[in-house]
Amino acid sequence: MMSPPTPPAATPSDLDPSGSHPANSCPAVTTGALPASTKVFLAGSRHPDVRVPMRSIALHPSSGEPPVLVYDSSGPYTDPDAVIDITRGLPCLRAGWIAARGDVEPGPTRTAPSSEPDATNETEGPATPAFPVSHPPLRAKGGRAVTQLAYARAGIITPEMEFVAIRENQGREAARAAGARDGEAFGATLPDIVTPEFVRDEVARGRAIIPANINHPEAEPMIIGRNFLVKINANIGNSAVASSMAEEVEKMVWATRWGADTVMDLSTGPQIHNTREWILRNAPVPIGTVPLYQALEKVGGVAEDLNWEIFRDTLIEQAEQGVDYFTIHAGLRLHHVPLTIERVTGIVSRGGSIMARWCLHHHRESFLYEHFEEICDIARAYDVAFSLGDGLRPGSIADANDAAQFAELETLGELTQIAWAKDCQVMIEGPGHVPMHKIKENMDKQLATCGEAPFYTLGPLTTDIAPGYDHITSAIGGAMIGWFGTAMLCYVTPKEHLGLPDRTDVKTGVITYKIAAHAADLAKGHPGARSRDDALSRARFEFRWEDQFNLSLDPDTAHAFHDKTPAQEAHKVAHFCSMCGPKFCSMRLSHDLRAQTQKAQTQKEGMAAMAAKYRKGGDLYMPVKEET
Amino acid sequence: MMSPPTPPAATPSDLDPSGSHPANSCPAVTTGALPASTKVFLAGSRHPDVRVPMRSIALHPSSGEPPVLVYDSSGPYTDPDAVIDITRGLPCLRAGWIAARGDVEPGPTRTAPSSEPDATNETEGPATPAFPVSHPPLRAKGGRAVTQLAYARAGIITPEMEFVAIRENQGREAARAAGARDGEAFGATLPDIVTPEFVRDEVARGRAIIPANINHPEAEPMIIGRNFLVKINANIGNSAVASSMAEEVEKMVWATRWGADTVMDLSTGPQIHNTREWILRNAPVPIGTVPLYQALEKVGGVAEDLNWEIFRDTLIEQAEQGVDYFTIHAGLRLHHVPLTIERVTGIVSRGGSIMARWCLHHHRESFLYEHFEEICDIARAYDVAFSLGDGLRPGSIADANDAAQFAELETLGELTQIAWAKDCQVMIEGPGHVPMHKIKENMDKQLATCGEAPFYTLGPLTTDIAPGYDHITSAIGGAMIGWFGTAMLCYVTPKEHLGLPDRTDVKTGVITYKIAAHAADLAKGHPGARSRDDALSRARFEFRWEDQFNLSLDPDTAHAFHDKTPAQEAHKVAHFCSMCGPKFCSMRLSHDLRAQTQKAQTQKEGMAAMAAKYRKGGDLYMPVKEET
Repeated sequence: MMSPPTPPAATPSDLDPSGSHPANSCPAVTTGALPASTKVFLAGSRHPDVRVPMRSIALHPSSGEPPVLVYDSSGPYTDPDAVIDITRGLPCLRAGWIAARGDVEPGPTRTAPSSEPDATNETEGPATPAFPVSHPPLRAKGGRAVTQLAYARAGIITPEMEFVAIRENQGREAARAAGARDGEAFGATLPDIVTPEFVRDEVARGRAIIPANINHPEAEPMIIGRNFLVKINANIGNSAVASSMAEEVEKMVWATRWGADTVMDLSTGPQIHNTREWILRNAPVPIGTVPLYQALEKVGGVAEDLNWEIFRDTLIEQAEQGVDYFTIHAGLRLHHVPLTIERVTGIVSRGGSIMARWCLHHHRESFLYEHFEEICDIARAYDVAFSLGDGLRPGSIADANDAAQFAELETLGELTQIAWAKDCQVMIEGPGHVPMHKIKENMDKQLATCGEAPFYTLGPLTTDIAPGYDHITSAIGGAMIGWFGTAMLCYVTPKEHLGLPDRTDVKTGVITYKIAAHAADLAKGHPGARSRDDALSRARFEFRWEDQFNLSLDPDTAHAFHDKTPAQEAHKVAHFCSMCGPKFCSMRLSHDLRAQTQKAQTQKEGMAAMAAKYRKGGDLYMPVKEET
Repeated sequence: MMSPPTPPAATPSDLDPSGSHPANSCPAVTTGALPASTKVFLAGSRHPDVRVPMRSIALHPSSGEPPVLVYDSSGPYTDPDAVIDITRGLPCLRAGWIAARGDVEPGPTRTAPSSEPDATNETEGPATPAFPVSHPPLRAKGGRAVTQLAYARAGIITPEMEFVAIRENQGREAARAAGARDGEAFGATLPDIVTPEFVRDEVARGRAIIPANINHPEAEPMIIGRNFLVKINANIGNSAVASSMAEEVEKMVWATRWGADTVMDLSTGPQIHNTREWILRNAPVPIGTVPLYQALEKVGGVAEDLNWEIFRDTLIEQAEQGVDYFTIHAGLRLHHVPLTIERVTGIVSRGGSIMARWCLHHHRESFLYEHFEEICDIARAYDVAFSLGDGLRPGSIADANDAAQFAELETLGELTQIAWAKDCQVMIEGPGHVPMHKIKENMDKQLATCGEAPFYTLGPLTTDIAPGYDHITSAIGGAMIGWFGTAMLCYVTPKEHLGLPDRTDVKTGVITYKIAAHAADLAKGHPGARSRDDALSRARFEFRWEDQFNLSLDPDTAHAFHDKTPAQEAHKVAHFCSMCGPKFCSMRLSHDLRAQTQKAQTQKEGMAAMAAKYRKGGDLYMPVKEET
């Protein structure tokens, strides 16, 4: 079951990282295992070269419990045996699988043309250098669809599908043995065990996607769908006025370390192409973008000057680089725009507002809508999945579930059918700002309108009054909509509405959304989800403090918070803590109680039998006078 | 409508605060108004001396909008005209109202006896000094019930009732004018306007409580009930191994500054009596306690040595000091204890575990259960409300909604009837750790079992795996159960399970729970709740950054986060920000769009008419070819 870690596939390079590039060419990234954690690999059976990384968390010997296996999105960065060199990129995990299918060929190498701002130096900071290693792009042979959807429909179980099947399964066997199924899944179908066949069926049905561009072979396959674990996305990206490439690469690595399942690079400004290349070559997770942002840079920021040709070229450029999913705001139609005029916050999606401006200026439907079939033809040649953008998502509680939002959703449903007809993988973006009582309507309408294509929501935020805490206002809505069926939650950081997230904000956002996604998995009754809660709670009850920290989403913070309070070192190992002191420790009292009860009962009967007896209304101790 | 602030009721005192006491006798507390905020007072009509403090947040003149009035729990500390002297305490707002009812008389002065640890010096730090000003206690004359419930049942509208009616109403008039009602209240009845009669009816019905001990006249009345704004409680309190009185007083002031509606002093250790006196004399909100903690101190921490006499004396001592509500774990019965044996985390309530130990040791029902009528007789003589404790609340996801928890809830329902028969005000404590799909069952069972007495829950936490972030795991559950009908949410801080909250944790917990409570109010369709969201969102859309900060729950953090990112000062006033830069600012684009659309349409028709036309499916621009 375990196998040694993969040696890093260091591509030969003549780069001298020490001197030939500007200061930000060799960003430092965070590496190393999480506390008490070992990376293990589970091997495939259909595809023996499938090796699925998992994190194994060791428990204290006194627990008598086996290690806890958890999902691991962090890639080789947490593998002490991997050699990390950001200037070379990650090993190309999927290269052999892609080649073996025999349906791709080298495409024209597309690098940043000299006319692009990347090559000039018009910004204040130094230009982002090109990535040192060239990756010649692949594309489908002769108009074929090289998408996971096309393979699934053809009955093929790809290595990617087996990979995600194994990846989704951790803990399920144990849970099945314990017979524990408990939840309300609102129509989702969560099998006891995820088989490769189940994955294929869900992908074929359009109910799940595996974002896996043939030009991003470094990424470890993952699946987004209502019948799988709820996933989270972390947004990174610089803007014209803040942040550098080095910071963004580290943010990507940092986000996956704490659990981001995908990362969107939302960079704007003149350094887009090269920044994205550095991110892609080093990303162990699928990368999403909004290609419109780069297209707008190419026309000097004048929305009206955008056109289909520039946009098409941008799509191809990004598809060749390896972007795994594109946000496309093709659902915003000309006649939707006036529906936003009376809104409290108008159009708050960047892509949406750009396209609305274009539509109104040219007095016609957007080139995204009119050329959507051609967009699909590009996507299917690289297996770029779509994230159909909700350009009209509400930006305030007042605008939630309004006519504009739902009109666009109807169009996204139409586009889903077009994409599926082209064998393209699709998910649907969702809001935004929505009060709790209007959240379920979003999920229900999306399922009905978009044929159960995966829903991918931003929060939603459940109130507008807490800037600085919108990770929390939105975790409430995110947990709920995840429970109702949303397949992936886009994180919101504390800086939402206020500024660009820094590294600290990225971690806070990721951990917060891991909480929301896990709470949703628990409530859906995901088999195995509860095993980590149970292991942590047992550790808590048995005063295994280190186990409690190690099993938590953020061991470092848990440990640091615990260290802060007690002045006396003894309290850290004692069977009580500074919160209550020894006399008031309910856990300690509870243990004494258990021992006492056990002692009192062992002569007569087992504890389980005793408890059962009480549950049936029996009374072992004494007749109790009912007071009235 | 506005009136000058009350002058501080400085009680004469011969104390020399500079030298006659140890260092922590004169704690510094946080004072001063929040940004752009003024304290205003709304006068009563039935009781002209009722003056209800509200916070008025001024907006920028460019907004053309009136100030936003919000609920204000912070007391005189945010009133620049008030003179704050912690050694003298707050003015006795309610003293005249209490005296005017003519049903109370001076009781025996109960001070800390010399046999209590307070007077000795057995801890490491200095002993907490006695509060410098003596407050002779009052009690009911001749066995009368001096509770708000008794008055309500007698048809009396007390000044306290008029006070809370006015306090609950802010924004409702405006909302009614706008005709905006929108929400799902799950059977709660939220009137358009809260009248004093409505308050009386709800209190008489037992569906709401006004915790207002006759010996805590400093507190500003507030109401806890399903048909009012959702409230939040903040726990403070030192333990034997950490924190001092000075810190706790500041935490209380700090918690109310950010919105805590009540504060529970959960202190343990030898300084309990004096610490509580300092807190009560300076608390503008109701104070709750768990009297069992002090009783346990009196018997040297040996649970088995507790008895009714010691507990009764402790209740009287605390009632005379002015504690507004008591947590009483009388619902834990002997035959419930074995139901906890198989739990993953046993009994996690401190009170619950102490009583379980007592019951098992003595092999009998607890003195709390057996003497509950006598406990009611004490409570009604001072108007101490009950918070009937859930000693068997689940401490892990695995234990949620189990037989032990619901068996105790049944007993709490019985005790509610006993308390009501004695004219005592009651609320019911709830969990705990509960996955999302099991939350509503808690609310439904509580309503059915406890006759709609207000529910007061701790979170619930929706997963166990995020120590260090349990304010968030529990805000998800708290917002949901608040929506379903919980009247007050007990906050959880980031230090939950790890250590005692410090001042920073208290603020994080309070703001997080204000978010949860407000999200619940919005979802219930509370009239007027949305007006603050709308005002903030308009400010956001119009780039009134300062207004956005000032209207937020935590202006300081919002401001600081915004300042962090942009290097250029110009961006702070510009019509875009560092997140997207000028080219990608959806808000700016949206404004341009609005202007453009307005211009294009003014010749033909009004914008509202145009939007209406589109909503009906009309198409003003051009026939659109449907792509398939």
